Amino acid sequence: MENFKNRRTIRKYKQKDISDNLLNDLFESAFRASTVGNMQVYSVIVTRDDQRKAKLAPAHFNQPMVQEAPVVLTFCIDLNRFSKWCKQRNAEPGYNNFEWFVTGAVDTLLVAQTFCIAAEEKGLGICYLGTTTYNPHLIIDALELPELVFPIATITVGWPAENPEQVDRLPLEGLIHKETYHDYTLKDIDRIYSYKESLLTNKQFILENRKETLAQVFTDVRYKKEDNEAMSKLLWEIMKKQGF
Amino acid sequence: MENFKNRRTIRKYKQKDISDNLLNDLFESAFRASTVGNMQVYSVIVTRDDQRKAKLAPAHFNQPMVQEAPVVLTFCIDLNRFSKWCKQRNAEPGYNNFEWFVTGAVDTLLVAQTFCIAAEEKGLGICYLGTTTYNPHLIIDALELPELVFPIATITVGWPAENPEQVDRLPLEGLIHKETYHDYTLKDIDRIYSYKESLLTNKQFILENRKETLAQVFTDVRYKKEDNEAMSKLLWEIMKKQGF
Repeated sequence: MENFKNRRTIRKYKQKDISDNLLNDLFESAFRASTVGNMQVYSVIVTRDDQRKAKLAPAHFNQPMVQEAPVVLTFCIDLNRFSKWCKQRNAEPGYNNFEWFVTGAVDTLLVAQTFCIAAEEKGLGICYLGTTTYNPHLIIDALELPELVFPIATITVGWPAENPEQVDRLPLEGLIHKETYHDYTLKDIDRIYSYKESLLTNKQFILENRKETLAQVFTDVRYKKEDNEAMSKLLWEIMKKQGF
Repeated sequence: MENFKNRRTIRKYKQKDISDNLLNDLFESAFRASTVGNMQVYSVIVTRDDQRKAKLAPAHFNQPMVQEAPVVLTFCIDLNRFSKWCKQRNAEPGYNNFEWFVTGAVDTLLVAQTFCIAAEEKGLGICYLGTTTYNPHLIIDALELPELVFPIATITVGWPAENPEQVDRLPLEGLIHKETYHDYTLKDIDRIYSYKESLLTNKQFILENRKETLAQVFTDVRYKKEDNEAMSKLLWEIMKKQGF
């Protein structure tokens, strides 16, 4: 339990490989995660090759972890394998739709997170790349994903070469609701965000970006409305193009 | 690690409560999961009240776990809290779109799965209810979820009152791809699914449903094309109605 609470995202890794044995052992654990109807509608692409990493890097805005980590894992929704099995067994699959994109995402993300926790228990460090849903077409191209396969999470994995400070989290009361959703009053919001806003690193962040508030750093710099809308359009189009 | 590999979904629970202390301890672990930009765009609704469980039950096709488990947790994508904070801090949020529905789903599912693994470490048993995305409108109604809040995973939690057999999983080679996606040949599909198809329980399943193949049990009985398509339409509409 203490492992869970002390965890940190690791972005710098030692130049030391991860054996196939260890990786397979972690996958054995990960694939025990709950899965809808025991259908396992996911696949994992393991990237170790430097050239393949270089091809994948632009999709992740060239974040250095992609090329520096010994292993990059792309967790994909996969309705292709299941549908192929159906067709080969005289059954007509009907999984090329939005419901199964979402159901597949649930399946896939439970596996990804189980992998991460198992990996951290073995002393490895991981980093999720939020960029996976920004440029799915580039990932699809780099990893040669066919129809009904869609990348939903990417993690870099390696032996930690840093020990960063743990970042803040919102207080429990800000995240949990008893029986029904209790919408937030102005006072609630002030209280829930006060610790985050009091942190020196976050105050620095406001100054560096010449903003008035921390929230503006998110809305005006990091995750802008117009970018979000363009990405929404692209994500929807690529999802359709992949057959969902 | 052995815990991970020996896990089973638990659907029958002892009539014994889970303390708030233990639950909060598990949430402390769960909320350490990776989150996009440290934004934590999720909320968890804790259902303990019998009347609320009864209201929630039809959304989950009255599966008995909902009313028998001491605790039901509904993990929701939540862009409402973050957007409220933005508005209160003179920042214009732009998270009411598909990109943030998906990003929020990733955030939320990593938390849900971390909770489950932490809970199992403490001896609790859990069951994911795949029905969450079938009737989201009923859940939204039962839990009074406002705009920009969307239920993406439900789990029932309790002290195990059963020790079921572990179910099968596909072999690793069927789920992992090296460097690029290697599409499946007819022979690959036969090999990957052979163990599953050889199981007596699955053969029984074909007989009971008067089908020719196990795949037909999925396509003709459990997850039918017309149902999937109707659910896709509904899921999309409710997502839009919730403001995404």
